[in-house]
Amino acid sequence: MNAEAALEHLRAYCRGMPPVAAMQVEVEGYADGVLRLAAPLAANVNDKGTAFGGSLTSLMTVAGWGRVTLALDMAGEAAEVYVADSSIRYLAPLRSDLHAEARLAAGESFEDFLSTLRQRGRARIQVEAVVRLPDGGAAATLSGRFVAIAKR
Amino acid sequence: MNAEAALEHLRAYCRGMPPVAAMQVEVEGYADGVLRLAAPLAANVNDKGTAFGGSLTSLMTVAGWGRVTLALDMAGEAAEVYVADSSIRYLAPLRSDLHAEARLAAGESFEDFLSTLRQRGRARIQVEAVVRLPDGGAAATLSGRFVAIAKR
Repeated sequence: MNAEAALEHLRAYCRGMPPVAAMQVEVEGYADGVLRLAAPLAANVNDKGTAFGGSLTSLMTVAGWGRVTLALDMAGEAAEVYVADSSIRYLAPLRSDLHAEARLAAGESFEDFLSTLRQRGRARIQVEAVVRLPDGGAAATLSGRFVAIAKR
Repeated sequence: MNAEAALEHLRAYCRGMPPVAAMQVEVEGYADGVLRLAAPLAANVNDKGTAFGGSLTSLMTVAGWGRVTLALDMAGEAAEVYVADSSIRYLAPLRSDLHAEARLAAGESFEDFLSTLRQRGRARIQVEAVVRLPDGGAAATLSGRFVAIAKR
Protein backbone atom coordinates (compact mmCIF):
# COMPACT_ATOMS: atom_id res chain seq x y z
CA MET A 1 0.00 0.00 0.00
CA ASN A 2 1.42 3.45 -0.80
CA ALA A 3 1.62 6.22 1.82
CA GLU A 4 -1.54 7.99 0.65
CA ALA A 5 -3.63 4.80 0.78
CA ALA A 6 -2.14 3.97 4.20
CA LEU A 7 -3.06 7.45 5.46
CA GLU A 8 -6.63 6.97 4.22
CA HIS A 9 -6.72 3.64 6.05
CA LEU A 10 -5.58 5.42 9.22
CA ARG A 11 -8.26 8.10 8.78
CA ALA A 12 -10.93 5.39 8.53
CA TYR A 13 -9.60 3.78 11.75
CA CYS A 14 -9.71 7.14 13.55
CA ARG A 15 -13.28 7.83 12.44
CA GLY A 16 -14.29 4.34 13.58
CA MET A 17 -13.05 4.69 17.17
CA PRO A 18 -15.62 6.70 19.19
CA PRO A 19 -13.14 8.24 21.68
CA VAL A 20 -10.83 9.30 18.83
CA ALA A 21 -13.75 10.66 16.81
CA ALA A 22 -14.91 12.60 19.90
CA MET A 23 -11.46 14.22 20.11
CA GLN A 24 -11.92 15.25 16.44
CA VAL A 25 -8.51 13.84 15.55
CA GLU A 26 -7.32 14.72 12.06
CA VAL A 27 -4.59 12.80 10.25
CA GLU A 28 -2.60 15.67 8.76
CA GLY A 29 0.08 13.83 6.86
CA TYR A 30 3.23 11.81 6.72
CA ALA A 31 6.68 12.84 5.54
CA ASP A 32 10.28 11.92 6.28
CA GLY A 33 9.28 9.22 8.78
CA VAL A 34 7.06 11.55 10.81
CA LEU A 35 3.29 11.13 11.16
CA ARG A 36 1.38 14.31 12.05
CA LEU A 37 -2.03 14.42 13.73
CA ALA A 38 -4.08 17.35 14.98
CA ALA A 39 -7.11 17.95 17.20
CA PRO A 40 -8.96 21.17 18.06
CA LEU A 41 -8.51 22.64 21.55
CA ALA A 42 -12.30 23.10 21.98
CA ALA A 43 -12.93 19.33 22.00
CA ASN A 44 -9.92 18.70 24.25
CA VAL A 45 -9.96 21.45 26.83
CA ASN A 46 -9.75 21.04 30.61
CA ASP A 47 -11.10 23.08 33.52
CA LYS A 48 -8.18 25.53 33.18
CA GLY A 49 -8.78 26.39 29.51
CA THR A 50 -5.70 24.46 28.41
CA ALA A 51 -5.31 21.10 26.66
CA PHE A 52 -6.54 18.22 28.83
CA GLY A 53 -3.69 15.89 29.87
CA GLY A 54 -5.69 12.83 28.84
CA SER A 55 -6.22 14.28 25.36
CA LEU A 56 -2.51 15.11 24.98
CA THR A 57 -1.69 11.52 25.89
CA SER A 58 -4.44 10.05 23.72
CA LEU A 59 -3.33 12.06 20.70
CA MET A 60 0.31 11.04 21.20
CA THR A 61 -0.73 7.41 21.71
CA VAL A 62 -2.80 7.42 18.51
CA ALA A 63 0.08 9.10 16.69
CA GLY A 64 2.52 6.42 17.86
CA TRP A 65 0.06 3.63 17.09
CA GLY A 66 -0.64 5.25 13.72
CA ARG A 67 3.06 5.54 12.90
CA VAL A 68 3.52 1.79 13.42
CA THR A 69 0.25 0.91 11.62
CA LEU A 70 1.28 3.08 8.67
CA ALA A 71 4.65 1.33 8.38
CA LEU A 72 2.98 -2.10 8.46
CA ASP A 73 0.43 -1.07 5.82
CA MET A 74 3.14 0.34 3.59
CA ALA A 75 5.08 -2.93 3.98
CA GLY A 76 1.98 -4.99 3.19
CA GLU A 77 1.94 -6.70 6.61
CA ALA A 78 -1.39 -7.53 8.28
CA ALA A 79 -0.94 -7.17 12.04
CA GLU A 80 -2.74 -5.79 15.07
CA VAL A 81 -0.86 -3.01 16.86
CA TYR A 82 -1.15 -2.49 20.61
CA VAL A 83 0.45 0.02 22.95
CA ALA A 84 2.33 -1.90 25.65
CA ASP A 85 3.61 0.88 27.87
CA SER A 86 4.39 4.57 27.78
CA SER A 87 6.03 7.36 29.74
CA ILE A 88 4.58 10.83 29.46
CA ARG A 89 5.91 14.22 30.48
CA TYR A 90 3.66 17.26 30.60
CA LEU A 91 5.99 20.20 30.12
CA ALA A 92 3.95 23.34 29.47
CA PRO A 93 0.27 24.30 29.25
CA LEU A 94 -1.07 24.44 25.69
CA ARG A 95 -3.70 27.09 24.91
CA SER A 96 -4.16 26.33 21.21
CA ASP A 97 -5.04 23.39 18.96
CA LEU A 98 -3.14 20.15 19.49
CA HIS A 99 -0.53 19.11 16.92
CA ALA A 100 1.25 15.80 17.49
CA GLU A 101 4.21 14.21 15.70
CA ALA A 102 5.33 10.60 16.03
CA ARG A 103 8.54 8.99 14.86
CA LEU A 104 10.66 5.96 15.70
CA ALA A 105 12.89 6.31 18.75
CA ALA A 106 16.59 6.79 18.03
CA GLY A 107 18.27 3.50 17.19
CA GLU A 108 15.02 1.73 16.21
CA SER A 109 14.67 0.19 12.76
CA PHE A 110 11.48 -0.77 10.91
CA GLU A 111 13.52 -3.26 8.89
CA ASP A 112 14.45 -5.16 12.06
CA PHE A 113 10.89 -4.83 13.37
CA LEU A 114 9.37 -6.25 10.16
CA SER A 115 11.96 -9.01 10.00
CA THR A 116 11.17 -10.06 13.60
CA LEU A 117 7.41 -9.86 12.91
CA ARG A 118 7.78 -12.11 9.84
CA GLN A 119 9.94 -14.62 11.69
CA ARG A 120 8.16 -14.76 15.04
CA GLY A 121 4.67 -13.40 14.34
CA ARG A 122 5.27 -10.73 16.96
CA ALA A 123 7.58 -7.73 17.33
CA ARG A 124 7.92 -4.58 19.39
CA ILE A 125 9.23 -1.14 18.64
CA GLN A 126 9.85 2.08 20.59
CA VAL A 127 8.18 5.28 19.34
CA GLU A 128 8.55 8.92 20.41
CA ALA A 129 5.75 11.45 20.15
CA VAL A 130 5.44 15.12 20.99
CA VAL A 131 2.70 17.74 21.07
CA ARG A 132 4.17 21.07 20.02
CA LEU A 133 3.67 24.52 21.46
CA PRO A 134 3.04 27.29 18.91
CA ASP A 135 6.68 28.40 19.35
CA GLY A 136 7.93 24.92 18.41
CA GLY A 137 8.75 23.81 21.95
CA ALA A 138 7.14 20.76 23.55
CA ALA A 139 3.87 20.86 25.50
CA ALA A 140 4.11 17.12 26.22
CA THR A 141 6.21 14.14 25.17
CA LEU A 142 5.53 10.43 25.08
CA SER A 143 7.91 7.53 24.79
CA GLY A 144 5.97 4.35 24.12
CA ARG A 145 6.54 0.72 23.25
CA PHE A 146 4.18 -0.75 20.66
CA VAL A 147 3.65 -4.43 19.92
CA ALA A 148 2.52 -5.84 16.57
CA ILE A 149 0.98 -9.31 16.37
CA ALA A 150 0.64 -10.84 12.89
CA LYS A 151 -2.88 -11.74 11.80
CA ARG A 152 -3.16 -15.39 10.82
CA MET B 1 -15.97 20.68 52.36
CA ASN B 2 -17.18 17.18 53.22
CA ALA B 3 -16.58 14.17 50.96
CA GLU B 4 -20.04 14.26 49.39
CA ALA B 5 -19.76 17.95 48.49
CA ALA B 6 -16.23 17.37 47.18
CA LEU B 7 -17.50 14.51 44.98
CA GLU B 8 -20.25 16.76 43.60
CA HIS B 9 -17.61 19.37 42.85
CA LEU B 10 -15.62 16.71 40.97
CA ARG B 11 -18.71 15.64 39.00
CA ALA B 12 -19.25 19.24 37.91
CA TYR B 13 -15.62 19.46 36.77
CA CYS B 14 -15.97 16.25 34.75
CA ARG B 15 -19.17 17.44 33.08
CA GLY B 16 -17.45 20.73 32.22
CA MET B 17 -14.48 19.20 30.38
CA PRO B 18 -15.56 18.22 26.82
CA PRO B 19 -13.12 15.30 26.39
CA VAL B 20 -14.11 13.87 29.80
CA ALA B 21 -17.81 14.35 29.06
CA ALA B 22 -17.32 12.59 25.69
CA MET B 23 -15.84 9.59 27.53
CA GLN B 24 -19.02 9.60 29.69
CA VAL B 25 -16.94 9.48 32.87
CA GLU B 26 -18.95 8.82 36.02
CA VAL B 27 -17.63 9.61 39.51
CA GLU B 28 -18.73 6.48 41.37
CA GLY B 29 -17.57 7.25 44.87
CA TYR B 30 -14.85 7.65 47.43
CA ALA B 31 -14.05 5.41 50.39
CA ASP B 32 -10.97 4.47 52.41
CA GLY B 33 -8.71 6.80 50.46
CA VAL B 34 -9.74 5.38 47.07
CA LEU B 35 -11.57 7.38 44.39
CA ARG B 36 -13.56 5.29 41.89
CA LEU B 37 -14.53 6.41 38.38
CA ALA B 38 -16.24 4.52 35.58
CA ALA B 39 -16.85 4.93 31.84
CA PRO B 40 -18.81 2.78 29.38
CA LEU B 41 -16.90 0.65 26.88
CA ALA B 42 -19.09 1.85 23.97
CA ALA B 43 -17.76 5.43 24.24
CA ASN B 44 -14.18 4.23 24.72
CA VAL B 45 -13.71 1.35 22.32
CA ASN B 46 -10.89 0.90 19.80
CA ASP B 47 -10.69 -0.81 16.42
CA LYS B 48 -10.27 -4.20 18.14
CA GLY B 49 -13.45 -4.01 20.25
CA THR B 50 -11.46 -3.47 23.44
CA ALA B 51 -10.90 -0.39 25.59
CA PHE B 52 -8.89 2.28 23.73
CA GLY B 53 -5.46 2.84 25.31
CA GLY B 54 -5.97 6.60 25.30
CA SER B 55 -9.25 6.22 27.20
CA LEU B 56 -7.65 3.90 29.79
CA THR B 57 -4.95 6.50 30.35
CA SER B 58 -7.37 9.44 30.36
CA LEU B 59 -9.61 7.73 32.90
CA MET B 60 -6.64 6.91 35.16
CA THR B 61 -5.30 10.46 34.76
CA VAL B 62 -8.69 11.97 35.70
CA ALA B 63 -8.92 9.55 38.63
CA GLY B 64 -5.48 10.60 39.90
CA TRP B 65 -6.21 14.27 39.34
CA GLY B 66 -9.60 13.79 41.02
CA ARG B 67 -8.05 12.05 44.01
CA VAL B 68 -5.75 15.03 44.63
CA THR B 69 -8.49 17.59 43.93
CA LEU B 70 -10.81 15.78 46.35
CA ALA B 71 -8.21 15.86 49.10
CA LEU B 72 -7.62 19.59 48.58
CA ASP B 73 -11.37 20.32 48.60
CA MET B 74 -11.86 18.32 51.78
CA ALA B 75 -8.97 20.22 53.39
CA GLY B 76 -10.41 23.58 52.26
CA GLU B 77 -7.40 24.44 50.08
CA ALA B 78 -7.91 26.35 46.82
CA ALA B 79 -5.32 25.12 44.34
CA GLU B 80 -5.00 24.15 40.69
CA VAL B 81 -3.94 20.54 40.15
CA TYR B 82 -1.84 19.52 37.12
CA VAL B 83 -0.47 16.17 36.02
CA ALA B 84 3.32 16.50 35.68
CA ASP B 85 4.31 13.07 34.41
CA SER B 86 3.08 9.51 34.30
CA SER B 87 4.09 5.97 33.45
CA ILE B 88 1.48 3.63 32.06
CA ARG B 89 1.44 -0.11 31.55
CA TYR B 90 -1.20 -1.78 29.40
CA LEU B 91 -1.44 -5.30 30.76
CA ALA B 92 -4.49 -7.02 29.28
CA PRO B 93 -7.28 -6.17 26.83
CA LEU B 94 -10.50 -5.02 28.49
CA ARG B 95 -13.77 -6.02 26.81
CA SER B 96 -16.16 -4.46 29.33
CA ASP B 97 -16.88 -1.09 30.93
CA LEU B 98 -13.93 0.81 32.42
CA HIS B 99 -13.60 1.03 36.20
CA ALA B 100 -10.69 3.01 37.59
CA GLU B 101 -9.39 3.43 41.15
CA ALA B 102 -6.88 6.02 42.31
CA ARG B 103 -5.01 6.22 45.59
CA LEU B 104 -1.82 7.75 46.96
CA ALA B 105 1.36 5.87 46.17
CA ALA B 106 2.90 3.94 49.06
CA GLY B 107 4.81 6.23 51.39
CA GLU B 108 3.00 9.41 50.26
CA SER B 109 1.20 11.58 52.78
CA PHE B 110 -1.50 14.18 52.20
CA GLU B 111 -0.51 15.84 55.48
CA ASP B 112 3.01 16.48 54.15
CA PHE B 113 1.60 17.54 50.77
CA LEU B 114 -0.80 20.05 52.37
CA SER B 115 1.86 21.34 54.70
CA THR B 116 4.26 21.94 51.77
CA LEU B 117 1.48 23.59 49.74
CA ARG B 118 0.67 25.96 52.62
CA GLN B 119 4.32 26.83 53.18
CA ARG B 120 5.53 27.13 49.59
CA GLY B 121 2.37 27.64 47.53
CA ARG B 122 3.27 24.53 45.54
CA ALA B 123 3.55 20.81 46.27
CA ARG B 124 3.71 17.53 44.42
CA ILE B 125 2.45 14.06 45.19
CA GLN B 126 2.66 10.60 43.60
CA VAL B 127 -0.60 8.78 42.81
CA GLU B 128 -1.28 5.23 41.60
CA ALA B 129 -4.27 4.33 39.47
CA VAL B 130 -5.54 1.10 37.97
CA VAL B 131 -8.31 0.01 35.60
CA ARG B 132 -9.62 -3.35 36.71
CA LEU B 133 -10.51 -6.42 34.70
CA PRO B 134 -13.83 -8.08 35.61
CA ASP B 135 -11.85 -10.78 37.50
CA GLY B 136 -10.17 -8.11 39.67
CA GLY B 137 -6.83 -8.17 37.84
CA ALA B 138 -5.37 -5.07 36.19
CA ALA B 139 -6.07 -4.07 32.58
CA ALA B 140 -3.77 -1.04 32.92
CA THR B 141 -1.88 0.83 35.62
CA LEU B 142 -0.68 4.39 35.93
CA SER B 143 1.86 5.92 38.27
CA GLY B 144 1.68 9.69 38.06
CA ARG B 145 3.07 12.78 39.72
CA PHE B 146 0.59 15.61 40.31
CA VAL B 147 1.42 19.19 41.18
CA ALA B 148 -0.82 21.56 43.11
CA ILE B 149 -0.32 25.33 42.86
CA ALA B 150 -2.14 27.47 45.42
CA LYS B 151 -4.58 30.03 44.06
CA ARG B 152 -3.75 33.52 45.25
